[in-house]
Amino acid sequence: MTARLIIINGGSSSGKTGIVRCLQAVLAEPWLALSVDDFVDALPADLEGSPEGIVIGPGGEVSVGPAFRELEAAWTAGVVAMCRAGGRVIVDDVFLGGTSSQQRWRDAIGDVETLWVGVHCAPEIAAGREIARGNRAGGMAEKQASVVHEGITYDIEVDTSHTESLTCAHTIASHVR
Amino acid sequence: MTARLIIINGGSSSGKTGIVRCLQAVLAEPWLALSVDDFVDALPADLEGSPEGIVIGPGGEVSVGPAFRELEAAWTAGVVAMCRAGGRVIVDDVFLGGTSSQQRWRDAIGDVETLWVGVHCAPEIAAGREIARGNRAGGMAEKQASVVHEGITYDIEVDTSHTESLTCAHTIASHVR
Amino acid sequence: MTARLIIINGGSSSGKTGIVRCLQAVLAEPWLALSVDDFVDALPADLEGSPEGIVIGPGGEVSVGPAFRELEAAWTAGVVAMCRAGGRVIVDDVFLGGTSSQQRWRDAIGDVETLWVGVHCAPEIAAGREIARGNRAGGMAEKQASVVHEGITYDIEVDTSHTESLTCAHTIASHVR
Amino acid sequence: MTARLIIINGGSSSGKTGIVRCLQAVLAEPWLALSVDDFVDALPADLEGSPEGIVIGPGGEVSVGPAFRELEAAWTAGVVAMCRAGGRVIVDDVFLGGTSSQQRWRDAIGDVETLWVGVHCAPEIAAGREIARGNRAGGMAEKQASVVHEGITYDIEVDTSHTESLTCAHTIASHVR
Repeated sequence: MTARLIIINGGSSSGKTGIVRCLQAVLAEPWLALSVDDFVDALPADLEGSPEGIVIGPGGEVSVGPAFRELEAAWTAGVVAMCRAGGRVIVDDVFLGGTSSQQRWRDAIGDVETLWVGVHCAPEIAAGREIARGNRAGGMAEKQASVVHEGITYDIEVDTSHTESLTCAHTIASHVR
Repeated sequence: MTARLIIINGGSSSGKTGIVRCLQAVLAEPWLALSVDDFVDALPADLEGSPEGIVIGPGGEVSVGPAFRELEAAWTAGVVAMCRAGGRVIVDDVFLGGTSSQQRWRDAIGDVETLWVGVHCAPEIAAGREIARGNRAGGMAEKQASVVHEGITYDIEVDTSHTESLTCAHTIASHVR
Repeated sequence: MTARLIIINGGSSSGKTGIVRCLQAVLAEPWLALSVDDFVDALPADLEGSPEGIVIGPGGEVSVGPAFRELEAAWTAGVVAMCRAGGRVIVDDVFLGGTSSQQRWRDAIGDVETLWVGVHCAPEIAAGREIARGNRAGGMAEKQASVVHEGITYDIEVDTSHTESLTCAHTIASHVR
Repeated sequence: MTARLIIINGGSSSGKTGIVRCLQAVLAEPWLALSVDDFVDALPADLEGSPEGIVIGPGGEVSVGPAFRELEAAWTAGVVAMCRAGGRVIVDDVFLGGTSSQQRWRDAIGDVETLWVGVHCAPEIAAGREIARGNRAGGMAEKQASVVHEGITYDIEVDTSHTESLTCAHTIASHVR
């Protein structure tokens, strides 16, 4: 597929970031790497911890409010526009809203050639990697491991439980171009 | 002005980032903060230090190549598209190409209401702040202090030499809406 | 003074870190820079947010518990031991316990030649810089600005309200060796 | 063993940091985590890239000079002193000097109870993880994978090639106390 956009969905600590960096290294063309985490970092500081913006609960549950959703829609449209303007973009996201998260991207994508990638990781392994990353608020990895994939359709799926990021990236890259 | 896009231009260590964060805090609506530094971070690692991408010389001189320019054009178009899609975006940049840097943005902007902001800082003060930031490769702050403003036209200009970021932000914010 | 240890005390956002980096740049000998923030980062993740360790309240108030105090005492002793072993160390701290914080260092220091430095910053200016740093939990800068200096004796004091970090560093450096 | 000091040695990208964080989580007592990377960050900026300090070559080779060695000796002595003062410390290091690196620690340790841990990782796997971390200057992981273990004696050795950090940490923790 002559994709311009690669959308990678997976739970927290499933290994998305490592796969994205490996993809940038193995793909022939230069691809930009953007993440929903970059979007959150771009928000005003007072939206973090606010019901209007994004709240992370003590058990790792994430809830977002209307200001988050509004700016997220604008950001999504902008990322797709980068592809329309000739760029190649890998974006990683966490589909907390399930099928509605995928639909939100589909509405923005239109006819931009897109490769949908699912990154799986066994919940107990993701939970261990969350500890290894030094995260204080535990529970997020395990909580998101399965739910983010419910009802989502992919072009390709990888599982980082027993496979290195670079190997996953090679598998994904073989579906590009 | 009912701006949707605020473009902040200034040399390295002139205080752009601090002003952007203060702007996000004082403006009534939520604004996304994006930076040319975010763009550079989104590039494949092998473009950093490559003539195809971006090279920072020992004296702080920056040179960019064709792969950088191509992805930068796509990124710029995407940032403007975020505004067209209903978002409000503050972007900080370093106009190393002078008037051609501003023209590059103008070509993408079209009719999106934009506030152009110049951030000045006396070269010797910026150089001192570069040391305070712990930067190894010195010289960038002094080298860029004046050159990034040559031939650029602004709606408003601030100088961080003797004025705090928050005060500068209030001055800028008074021109928004 | 032929100091081996420079202890820099000041409130949050008073400009300690910038001064420390400038000091490293202007002092003739190589000095290590250590911070109480490094100590906090070295703690187990589950002590952050725990009454046993360190809790930062919504208004920026900091409280620490017994596990924090015990490890802090060991860390303090170790920092001083680096000086005894021939190293030169600049350490920045926040004397939240007032004179007892200074006494804690004095007990560890023994006969190691020490330069005591106080870094002042007007509370409203420190509060503005806290916003410029993008900190979510505001209030810490203003809360600490005066209280950390109560009853503390210094060899030299600087004020970053209207003086750049590099200038402050030159002033401090003139008291070393 | 009633260890007060755990020294973890392994090459770049072998997974030391993740193991250290997991160890902090699974050990009953609170342990401080310090790293040779923290030491490098504490050096004056002008020692990075200088033959007096530390130079990282284009192929990932590391060479250090006299100023580095002098401050490193002081830092090492200080870390051990933290244990003598009642602290528990996990330190991760890269024994680029082979047996002389271990001897340097032994000279400082004296009678402090120490658990020596070797972290292995297959060179090609470490090299892949280096790419996943987004490191530009490749080659370091592969170059260090075997050489850092030559002639070193350990109390326990783990291999992260096919074992998660948390599992390695549990294995190590079973040797503590």
